[in-house]
Amino acid sequence: MTTDLLALTEALCDIPSVSGTEEAIADAVEARLRAVGPNLRVERIGANVVARTELARDRRIVLGGHLDTVPPNGNASPRRDGDVLHGLGTADMKGGLAVLLALAASLGRREPRFDVTLVLYEGEEVADEFNGLRRLFSEAPALVQGDLAILLEPTGGWVEAGCQGTIHVRAGFDGVRAHSARPWMGTNAIHRAAPLLARCASFDAAVVDVDSLDYREALQVVRIEGGIANNVVPDRCTVVVNRRYAPSRSLDEAVAEVVAFCREAGADDVEVINASTAAPPNLMNPLIAELIGVYDLPVRPKLGWTDVARFAAHGIAACNFGPGDPELAHTADERVDRITLDACLGLLEAFVGLR
Amino acid sequence: MTTDLLALTEALCDIPSVSGTEEAIADAVEARLRAVGPNLRVERIGANVVARTELARDRRIVLGGHLDTVPPNGNASPRRDGDVLHGLGTADMKGGLAVLLALAASLGRREPRFDVTLVLYEGEEVADEFNGLRRLFSEAPALVQGDLAILLEPTGGWVEAGCQGTIHVRAGFDGVRAHSARPWMGTNAIHRAAPLLARCASFDAAVVDVDSLDYREALQVVRIEGGIANNVVPDRCTVVVNRRYAPSRSLDEAVAEVVAFCREAGADDVEVINASTAAPPNLMNPLIAELIGVYDLPVRPKLGWTDVARFAAHGIAACNFGPGDPELAHTADERVDRITLDACLGLLEAFVGLR
Repeated sequence: MTTDLLALTEALCDIPSVSGTEEAIADAVEARLRAVGPNLRVERIGANVVARTELARDRRIVLGGHLDTVPPNGNASPRRDGDVLHGLGTADMKGGLAVLLALAASLGRREPRFDVTLVLYEGEEVADEFNGLRRLFSEAPALVQGDLAILLEPTGGWVEAGCQGTIHVRAGFDGVRAHSARPWMGTNAIHRAAPLLARCASFDAAVVDVDSLDYREALQVVRIEGGIANNVVPDRCTVVVNRRYAPSRSLDEAVAEVVAFCREAGADDVEVINASTAAPPNLMNPLIAELIGVYDLPVRPKLGWTDVARFAAHGIAACNFGPGDPELAHTADERVDRITLDACLGLLEAFVGLR
Repeated sequence: MTTDLLALTEALCDIPSVSGTEEAIADAVEARLRAVGPNLRVERIGANVVARTELARDRRIVLGGHLDTVPPNGNASPRRDGDVLHGLGTADMKGGLAVLLALAASLGRREPRFDVTLVLYEGEEVADEFNGLRRLFSEAPALVQGDLAILLEPTGGWVEAGCQGTIHVRAGFDGVRAHSARPWMGTNAIHRAAPLLARCASFDAAVVDVDSLDYREALQVVRIEGGIANNVVPDRCTVVVNRRYAPSRSLDEAVAEVVAFCREAGADDVEVINASTAAPPNLMNPLIAELIGVYDLPVRPKLGWTDVARFAAHGIAACNFGPGDPELAHTADERVDRITLDACLGLLEAFVGLR
């Protein structure tokens, strides 16, 4: 019995699960995991479902995927076109969830060479406080322990190793209000922000070699806001800067660096909105090396932040490997195809010893 | 019989008249002007009241004041402190309206040497489309004709000559969205606005001599807006620039100049939000020269835009002269005192031949 992964992905896409509304899809995957039978022990915490083998193997592989999607972009309903499924969540990441559910079914029939934990969680596409994996590490850390974590984020057939850290800071510039016909009576806060904008625009982001992978960093202004009325010299301007940094530096180093960058450009205050650690590629880890080496998978660095950093922060080696094109995630063109789903399942089943 | 100008100003301040709600104060001033008797012919159009003598004098003086105020700033109710009246509208410009109403009363008792038109109008503190004087010039231009217009905007005892023009443009910068972890896939519209901000911040505004008055120009960013989400390279940034220019140049020249300024800094589109002509100081005009010369009034240029420019655009020489400190207009500290009100009334009565 083989699972039709494209049909299963479509069924999962038929259950809306924009962040904050994951109960229905959590119910669906929980029911499916419980139906696997005695080989899997299933736990539910909030809209997070964890299914584990308990075979007392010496190593445990955690396979994870988030249940939520970003809001629809005119693509709320999945659409089949031959062996391609289009629509919200197809690549990010209900295709990956379908692979996990099919792998669970295999675990009901055969014993793997590692213990396996499947983690399907809520709230990945929104602020960290809503992240289900964060909740599990906090409330039930034993459930998510392992020797290697693989996140089925779309990677287009590559292993995307580690991930860059991400930091958002809000740099504030103060001024003094005045009538705009007499600006010398005041101080223009937007004008005071000009050097920071110039500095960001001309910033020469580094390409950092970590384990022979090129992590291309970034520093971007993602928001700017200032102004009170059209006849008033503004007394406040805020600039949100997003820094992406390679896993060669600690979070503290990277935060200090971006705060100093804004201060040196004249910011009066710099608030760290959020700051997420980077994850090292860990290519020397024996399990990651085996995953890559045995199947001769291509490897590239992960530039965006993913929950591999959360596993890394808890001392668990982790990488991204899942079906779908990462460049299409969060776009109206999001899609996944049958061969990619089947290939991902086949490789993961082989890796954990189910084939 | 003399009018208690401070009490009358207080009574006018007791009638709320934030722009858009001037009906009640228009009713009150209309009733008061009609009570003057046969010497004044009173017309009402919307919340605009015009009272005119018809003495067939060879010259006519128009005295104007707006009925509306900006929104309260914790100062909605007037407060007496001896001979000082504090509160919204005291200086800008119910003190001036009180002077106009007292002068109307004098016109009921004596004949002036000029014909006199009093114009009390709505909608000065908001967008030009709501300006009552604009409506009068459009619908009943004969009512607002004259040889000299004096606006009783607060000038602190000075004649404020002419006024600078004001232009607002919105400069738009386009980009291409991308994930902020891969900014090289897109173009950051906020970064593209950096040169315009730098150019505005370092702009060396000229001081222009017109009729030996120093018009100090200005160019300020008054608003900036950009950004979609904290993980997205923004594809749009807009910058509102306010240009204040001396009455040495035409509106068309000044508009072309600021549009070119934004274009040269890389703006993709520049929208003219509004553009108001400047008014020349007209110090050689015989009536303005007489007003200044006979009473030895100090003269300075008006840097902010006022409706004198509207009169000037209709070929009517105009200046600002009214009670109250212009620097306190629109502030929580707005106030006017008795001696200033009495002095303004005395001078205007003398000028038009009522004393």
